[in-house]
Amino acid sequence: MADYILGIDIGGTNTKYGLVDKKGKVVGEGAFITHAHEKVEFFLEELKKNILPKLEGKSVLGVGVGAPNANYFNGTIMQAANISWGDNVPLQKLISGVFDLPAILTNDASAAALGEMKFGGAQGMKDFVIFTLGTGLGSGFVVNGEIVYGHSGFAGEIGHVGVNPDGRYCGCGRRGCLETYVSATGIKKTVFKMMADYTRPSVLRDVSYNDMTAEMITNAAKDHDYIAIKAFEYTGQIFGQKLADTVVHTSPEAIFLFGGLVNAGDYLLDPATYYMEKFMFKPFKKTVKLLPSSLMDQNAAVLGAAALGWEEFSKK
Amino acid sequence: MADYILGIDIGGTNTKYGLVDKKGKVVGEGAFITHAHEKVEFFLEELKKNILPKLEGKSVLGVGVGAPNANYFNGTIMQAANISWGDNVPLQKLISGVFDLPAILTNDASAAALGEMKFGGAQGMKDFVIFTLGTGLGSGFVVNGEIVYGHSGFAGEIGHVGVNPDGRYCGCGRRGCLETYVSATGIKKTVFKMMADYTRPSVLRDVSYNDMTAEMITNAAKDHDYIAIKAFEYTGQIFGQKLADTVVHTSPEAIFLFGGLVNAGDYLLDPATYYMEKFMFKPFKKTVKLLPSSLMDQNAAVLGAAALGWEEFSKK
Repeated sequence: MADYILGIDIGGTNTKYGLVDKKGKVVGEGAFITHAHEKVEFFLEELKKNILPKLEGKSVLGVGVGAPNANYFNGTIMQAANISWGDNVPLQKLISGVFDLPAILTNDASAAALGEMKFGGAQGMKDFVIFTLGTGLGSGFVVNGEIVYGHSGFAGEIGHVGVNPDGRYCGCGRRGCLETYVSATGIKKTVFKMMADYTRPSVLRDVSYNDMTAEMITNAAKDHDYIAIKAFEYTGQIFGQKLADTVVHTSPEAIFLFGGLVNAGDYLLDPATYYMEKFMFKPFKKTVKLLPSSLMDQNAAVLGAAALGWEEFSKK
Repeated sequence: MADYILGIDIGGTNTKYGLVDKKGKVVGEGAFITHAHEKVEFFLEELKKNILPKLEGKSVLGVGVGAPNANYFNGTIMQAANISWGDNVPLQKLISGVFDLPAILTNDASAAALGEMKFGGAQGMKDFVIFTLGTGLGSGFVVNGEIVYGHSGFAGEIGHVGVNPDGRYCGCGRRGCLETYVSATGIKKTVFKMMADYTRPSVLRDVSYNDMTAEMITNAAKDHDYIAIKAFEYTGQIFGQKLADTVVHTSPEAIFLFGGLVNAGDYLLDPATYYMEKFMFKPFKKTVKLLPSSLMDQNAAVLGAAALGWEEFSKK
């Protein structure tokens, strides 16, 4: 058996990579700009230039890749919002060609779930859910110890359950989707609503919509900013309510939260837990753990992509 | 390998049974009154008296049992609303003792899912959901070709996702649960709301709440009764909207509907399909089949219970 899987996490801005051993130790880490808006060939050249030297003298079993809107079944990226390499880019085949190694592709949330299961807090769990709270809201399901891709390969799109049919407009064309409330973008929208609803002063009133970040809102909350705290409460309320709905679907043992918004810690977790329990169907009350990902401080996306590779190629 | 599994479906009113072969052919069928409100020993006596003679000369591998609120993991019935044998009745052990055969227990919706997968319209499918629309709303999930029990053994309680936190009171103690709208009881409540909201005459205005059945509402709709048709539209709208939410969880290939309310056919299916598609996240639009169970006219509950037995005991 080879010693490493090459894990690659492709984001809209940066691509990160590393060689990950069976126990989750990472060597040869690095990152480069994705060049998401040039041709895919340009990305592949960068990939080669950055990574090939790191592979020398290493025994590598294969490549695991996490990317937005990636489909595990056909190895393509489909209509990713922040990457304009075209529709149905056959990335699995292309990356396999670059390294002359077997490659496997999945979306970032499923990769995060696999990483949590193999190297993180979900070790030994057979049923859990992970939410990635970044620009949008992604989710990955594990059921009976296996990742859920579903019939389409796109299972776990909980960012698009309905909160309110007359609610906020969503990039997907509908209204009131969960990710328009619960994500870095969602809480920013909520801050703007709160600034309209309340008269309290706030440092956030000096920042434009385009300049505002989730980090600013978190910092304001830590400084006892009323608007910021209210925004986290509202976000946690909607999130908790929908978590209770998710629980009655597959009955997970735990729900892990991952991504930038989770740095807010208890400002988000406390109201989310309170409202999840408030709306929880009785037989599940106090039985489901809501936890930050244990890989938050590590290169979790690369670990997750590598976990996919270990899962896929070490069976054979 | 033995020829038959004994399938037993325990309902609040009747208990049905039959010997089911590998292909779903049923022999030695029968039914008796459950005596749900006497002691469980009385039920076990009836079970013995009815079924033991049917087993003579037959080669039987084991017993599959479907029952409300049954837990696959520990073989007990827990707090079933319509059966008062006490909490945590160890039914699996008791039934195994009666017949001196291995027995396995699950809830009725999971049994229905297994029946559909082994003998019905879901043959060959790896990802689907079944809804049972009776007094309440039950559901069963299949993911990666396996039934989903979840961490608790109680996965698939979609009857208790929230429609409206200020909505109808539910037997579970919360408000606005899906089954208070979408079930035989739910549509009856909706008819009473519609009779208040509208002035149109209706045959249903002559029937008391306690006397009204879902069958009466279906028959009224078939006779073009305005109130009944509106009630089905309202039911289908709420159902369709929540089906779209369920789809983004596990991405099923099909959703099967089972139970008395499904006899209304297109009165329910048309609005449910329309609103499911209207609220569907774009990548799933027009990809998920909404179908009546193909076992509707058969003894599906017994087939489902037997499918569980085949699943469980023929592996070994």
